[in-house]
Amino acid sequence: MASSGGRNPELRKDSVSNRWVIFSPARAKRPSDFKSKTPTNSNHLQQKCPFCIGQEHQCAPEIFRVPPDDPNWTIRVIENLYPALSRSLCDPSAPSSDSGHRDIGNRVLDGFGFHDVVIETPIHSVQLGDLSPEEIARVFLAYRKRIEQLASRDSIEYVQVFKNHGASAGASMSHSHSQILALPIIPPNVSARLGSMKDYFEQKGKCCICQIESEDLVINASTNFISLVPYAATFPFEIWIVPRYHSAHFHELDAEKAVELGGLLKLILRKMSLQLNNPPFNFMIHTSPLHCNNASELAYTHWFIQIVPQLTGIGGFEIGTGCYINPVFPEDAAKVLRELLGS
Amino acid sequence: MASSGGRNPELRKDSVSNRWVIFSPARAKRPSDFKSKTPTNSNHLQQKCPFCIGQEHQCAPEIFRVPPDDPNWTIRVIENLYPALSRSLCDPSAPSSDSGHRDIGNRVLDGFGFHDVVIETPIHSVQLGDLSPEEIARVFLAYRKRIEQLASRDSIEYVQVFKNHGASAGASMSHSHSQILALPIIPPNVSARLGSMKDYFEQKGKCCICQIESEDLVINASTNFISLVPYAATFPFEIWIVPRYHSAHFHELDAEKAVELGGLLKLILRKMSLQLNNPPFNFMIHTSPLHCNNASELAYTHWFIQIVPQLTGIGGFEIGTGCYINPVFPEDAAKVLRELLGS
Repeated sequence: MASSGGRNPELRKDSVSNRWVIFSPARAKRPSDFKSKTPTNSNHLQQKCPFCIGQEHQCAPEIFRVPPDDPNWTIRVIENLYPALSRSLCDPSAPSSDSGHRDIGNRVLDGFGFHDVVIETPIHSVQLGDLSPEEIARVFLAYRKRIEQLASRDSIEYVQVFKNHGASAGASMSHSHSQILALPIIPPNVSARLGSMKDYFEQKGKCCICQIESEDLVINASTNFISLVPYAATFPFEIWIVPRYHSAHFHELDAEKAVELGGLLKLILRKMSLQLNNPPFNFMIHTSPLHCNNASELAYTHWFIQIVPQLTGIGGFEIGTGCYINPVFPEDAAKVLRELLGS
Repeated sequence: MASSGGRNPELRKDSVSNRWVIFSPARAKRPSDFKSKTPTNSNHLQQKCPFCIGQEHQCAPEIFRVPPDDPNWTIRVIENLYPALSRSLCDPSAPSSDSGHRDIGNRVLDGFGFHDVVIETPIHSVQLGDLSPEEIARVFLAYRKRIEQLASRDSIEYVQVFKNHGASAGASMSHSHSQILALPIIPPNVSARLGSMKDYFEQKGKCCICQIESEDLVINASTNFISLVPYAATFPFEIWIVPRYHSAHFHELDAEKAVELGGLLKLILRKMSLQLNNPPFNFMIHTSPLHCNNASELAYTHWFIQIVPQLTGIGGFEIGTGCYINPVFPEDAAKVLRELLGS
């Protein structure tokens, strides 16, 4: 199990999340030896599932498709058949709502919200990283369109876009898809992140994510985006893709930049798959609350994408403390991924 | 997958952690159908490991044993062979320390700390729940003794006692053991909990854990302790054991109450194993920071034990938002466990 690189453990605090992470090389293999023990299967065997083209009748209602009204769709945005929150409860902010909304000392709310699925491709055997940059861009633009629709609801405070790839990363369907959960609250990690970024801005006069480029943490960069391992990465080989221009909300992304972002995400997914043996992974788009619109707030918030390969589990220490133990120093992970040829 | 009890989803905020949890019965089986798909194996086949009596030479150094100096020990507290933090780095608070402690804008600290293992039994095939209340009490008193030793260090801010049972809950050894990690920082979940409990105290004039007993959430009670499912349980069938008397620090536990607590923990572990098919689980002792000693702080903090069976994984939504989706309403889980005969 152990082969220390001779390095001592270290605690680092992330200036975005404001959380301490323990870096503990004594518990690690060499960074280049990290591989998933549960690689995700390719989808070639099973050729038909409810997300496949032609099986639309097996799904919950469609919200929109790309291109619109085309039976040969490339992307579908649909309702989740087993939603975590219910769109059919009364919208608590609707003007004439006779809401069942209870509020005992702010400790309970009706579970109003939206839980959608984005089917990223009509073909069962295709994964997100197999798509071209232009096709990945269309997935991003579908997220943008759905977020814009949800933003028209006063009662929706935050939209979390995320993807679970592989069963052990939480995916119940192997057909490539992502999820959009629209929440009537600002979730705890988002509040904590905004507070931390605000503190940084007040101390340094700059957005902390605009300051994030550090040579030994960078993996790859393009004109408008950079991929890197964060200074206090919570998980081994965690990767962020960050816009190099200041932007508070993901849904400000334009079509041209979406293609560039698609190209960088494709490269990073390819590198991660090669280096780590096609691991299960999660990706999350971290954006700003929908109603965060005044200039002073917009100055310190900055959206980014977080990608987390599932290589190590969590245990009682992490559940108890919220503090994570990462066996791989970020600069070591970044070097391995930077030096890998992705094509 | 789904069989809703006809109940709508609900968001609840926990007054201890101050976190929202989404309760979403549409995603659930019936509460009584929850079972672990990866039950932990009994240990009968492998009879010898480094934690077994007679194999002490294979372990990292011993800190103490119970009874002292007895070759027929019942409990050993030893150093972790692969510690997350290093006890051999200079103690940053030691008076003559020429510490390598770096601090760039408070973002990095040397990884000084202690990471110990408590071997709960000399016998490979015995699990914690198999011990008698008196034997479990001796494990608690070993935790107490080690915490008291660590508390003499000014540089140690918090001690996390935890147990990972089963490989998928993070245990790398199947021989029954728990871990003690002594940290030079107050971890994020602890700061958040203290802040939330302080707010509650300032609003209501009472400790929020002293107020926690609620008939439909209780599983079992004894004179000084109560077991319950918390009102906003993060995980399905999460269980807390709470002292009914006000006490800030776990290491105030006396020998008599330790036996009573051992009996209640034994009952709860037995019920969890019967109901959920011997699931992997984590337990964590949530106590107060070591140097939290003034009366105003002691008034609002209150230690407790959290037990989390590993039944569902986490995905991108939970990693991204810090908000969890629990498919089982706490009062339903409590009812199932309350009505189960544990012996």
